[in-house]
Amino acid sequence: MPVQENIELPIEVSARHVHLAQADQDVLFGPGYQMKIKKNLSQTGQWAAEEKVTVIGPKGQCDCRVLGPCRPQTQVEFAFSDGFKMGIDVPLRESGHLDGTPGCTLVGPKGRVELKQGVIDPQRHLHIRDTEAAERGLEKGDILSVIIPGPQGAVFNNFIVRVHPTFRMNIHLDTDEGNACSLPAFGAMGRVVRVERAGKVIWTDSTWLL
Amino acid sequence: MPVQENIELPIEVSARHVHLAQADQDVLFGPGYQMKIKKNLSQTGQWAAEEKVTVIGPKGQCDCRVLGPCRPQTQVEFAFSDGFKMGIDVPLRESGHLDGTPGCTLVGPKGRVELKQGVIDPQRHLHIRDTEAAERGLEKGDILSVIIPGPQGAVFNNFIVRVHPTFRMNIHLDTDEGNACSLPAFGAMGRVVRVERAGKVIWTDSTWLL
Repeated sequence: MPVQENIELPIEVSARHVHLAQADQDVLFGPGYQMKIKKNLSQTGQWAAEEKVTVIGPKGQCDCRVLGPCRPQTQVEFAFSDGFKMGIDVPLRESGHLDGTPGCTLVGPKGRVELKQGVIDPQRHLHIRDTEAAERGLEKGDILSVIIPGPQGAVFNNFIVRVHPTFRMNIHLDTDEGNACSLPAFGAMGRVVRVERAGKVIWTDSTWLL
Repeated sequence: MPVQENIELPIEVSARHVHLAQADQDVLFGPGYQMKIKKNLSQTGQWAAEEKVTVIGPKGQCDCRVLGPCRPQTQVEFAFSDGFKMGIDVPLRESGHLDGTPGCTLVGPKGRVELKQGVIDPQRHLHIRDTEAAERGLEKGDILSVIIPGPQGAVFNNFIVRVHPTFRMNIHLDTDEGNACSLPAFGAMGRVVRVERAGKVIWTDSTWLL
């Protein structure tokens, strides 16, 4: 299937958050602790907890919401401005790619974890179900540019396509990116203007320039 | 002169700040007060003061650096995220276009000003000297799109060209926009990819899509 014209994508703006490994959750909240679900997220089975942890960096600290369920590795997802305020030089990474990333201190009601690594600025990405991707001619690993319309509009580059049968289609921006375009947390839409696959540009739409 | 190819523009990222009218400065700091210049800005004759004022909105307050010299009207320049934290719904405006904008309370060491209007999110803009603009085929009021390269790159739309014999060439982004691309306050560069004049697109460069 060739890449389709006018692929419209819902946009979600994600504030900083932390995914905890079970062992770290046990230290921070106590063994066997059950998080209270504040709300379900658009990705199936994922939820935001009522609970927050304190993230401490060399220059500051901040509260950071816990997202569940637990993952194999603890991962703190920051926007650039969050890292700046904490004094942590946060690298751009795909989720789960934590080798060589900086650490921080996490503090919960029952304990403290010295994280050796795990603080990232998540690379812009698209979540999409396998069938939805196929219908649109998109594949896992494709790199997209997406235009956001309006007087504070922009084209953001370098969204990576992540495909899974359980995903709901949306692109994730961090708060800096959302704020740059004055976007709400939910409800904005973007449109694909460029698709790169395996290092080659396979589709472009330059109509927005005209 | 037609629009030139590959117009490269230095980028400055401006944090929130306030320009004071003399009457408001007199109330906030006392009549005859002399601001201490912290540093000269890239625009000739403009400077950042050591002094800050406190800006109070319905949901919060923040310190806000004073920029000088005084202007005819007091104007608070916020990024979207600053307005969000203060509970002020900040409209996108050109500098000095304050009719119908929200107000706030300003507090200084000697007094308090209830500002009826003047809080804006400044429209993205290019400062450029008249001779520099002419050499590049740009005119006052042109609307530009500018690409910022890199893994967190973007094309920002809707920069308005402001021309004056004393201007030094640079584009101004607010902190949300700079942070969205992990830019430093100074030293980044952008490149023009689209020029619109009087509502018509007169030049485009789509090579960045390829």
